[in-house]
Amino acid sequence: MLTTDRYEIRFSGSGGQGIITAAIVLAEAVATKTKNYVSQTQSYGPEARGGTSKAEVVISPSPIDYPKAIQLDLLLAMNQASCDAYFADLKPEGLLVTDASLVDQVPTDRNVAIPFTEIAISQAGKKVVANMAALGAVVHLTQIVSPKAMESALLARVPKGTEEMNAKAYRAGARAAKKFDLSALPPTVTPEEEEL
Amino acid sequence: MLTTDRYEIRFSGSGGQGIITAAIVLAEAVATKTKNYVSQTQSYGPEARGGTSKAEVVISPSPIDYPKAIQLDLLLAMNQASCDAYFADLKPEGLLVTDASLVDQVPTDRNVAIPFTEIAISQAGKKVVANMAALGAVVHLTQIVSPKAMESALLARVPKGTEEMNAKAYRAGARAAKKFDLSALPPTVTPEEEEL
Repeated sequence: MLTTDRYEIRFSGSGGQGIITAAIVLAEAVATKTKNYVSQTQSYGPEARGGTSKAEVVISPSPIDYPKAIQLDLLLAMNQASCDAYFADLKPEGLLVTDASLVDQVPTDRNVAIPFTEIAISQAGKKVVANMAALGAVVHLTQIVSPKAMESALLARVPKGTEEMNAKAYRAGARAAKKFDLSALPPTVTPEEEEL
Repeated sequence: MLTTDRYEIRFSGSGGQGIITAAIVLAEAVATKTKNYVSQTQSYGPEARGGTSKAEVVISPSPIDYPKAIQLDLLLAMNQASCDAYFADLKPEGLLVTDASLVDQVPTDRNVAIPFTEIAISQAGKKVVANMAALGAVVHLTQIVSPKAMESALLARVPKGTEEMNAKAYRAGARAAKKFDLSALPPTVTPEEEEL
């Protein structure tokens, strides 16, 4: 369900949180299960040696010339450092999604805060699948691909033997996101600045 | 060892050959073990539903604005369809690397043909690690990152329990590439056209 010409998502967190895997799974789901074009990019600079991780997915109904995100429609921040580093890249009407287990200080009320890491541990037994819990939430919040199509793309990509754990985390993340009413959030990430 | 301002690699093949994983492992190795910037991109269009797979790695000593490949320095083609589809994107002085197990018709003599799939089966026991055999060859041929740094990045990324299999395939691919003398190849991929 893509109503704009270009929808930009950045997944961010620390190395080891499965940020890139989440982005690839989403990109493959959108590419194979919808009629949209998708570009999925990792860009590494000197900061790659600092352990932070980011991955972008750009989705469009028409061919994508410039595959890097310019202004984010959605930022997933799985740790405080990435929330701090990338919040400024959100569009005014963009949405911030944070792992409430690891992000304490949130710079906007236009935020969906879900404890992905705790959910992964309690619902799927391993914190390593927090990325799939986050993916479940992102898919529910954006409706960019159907939950069922997403789950089948996910199962095709994750290592054999881990399907059930990943699927459990994915579904738990989607369930948690359902408790949020986006229309109840402020319309922009920085309402104060809008009024200037 | 990067002597140009921008070095572009495309890995291509069919879905299930681990094309994206190979590109991510290379990108992470270059990002964490060298001082270069790296962008790694998958772009999917309607062809994603046809089962072909491609992934690009762009490497530069300076920040990369445009992360998609424009003219390839190296094309890895792991099947005939991707060789046919992407050969035209090579620079004149670019290098074609093919999986000789699966690519019969090669459009240039500036080609390193190595049976990656057969090597993966005979040396590591599984054809699924043909991607790592190809990566070993690419690293040896480009020397864009040291073989040792590459292997350590590889071991950090592949699923637990598969490290030895992946490392074996990687080393076997590098060994096979050592038998090729790049200086003995024609200097361009299309010498005939050069003479026009």
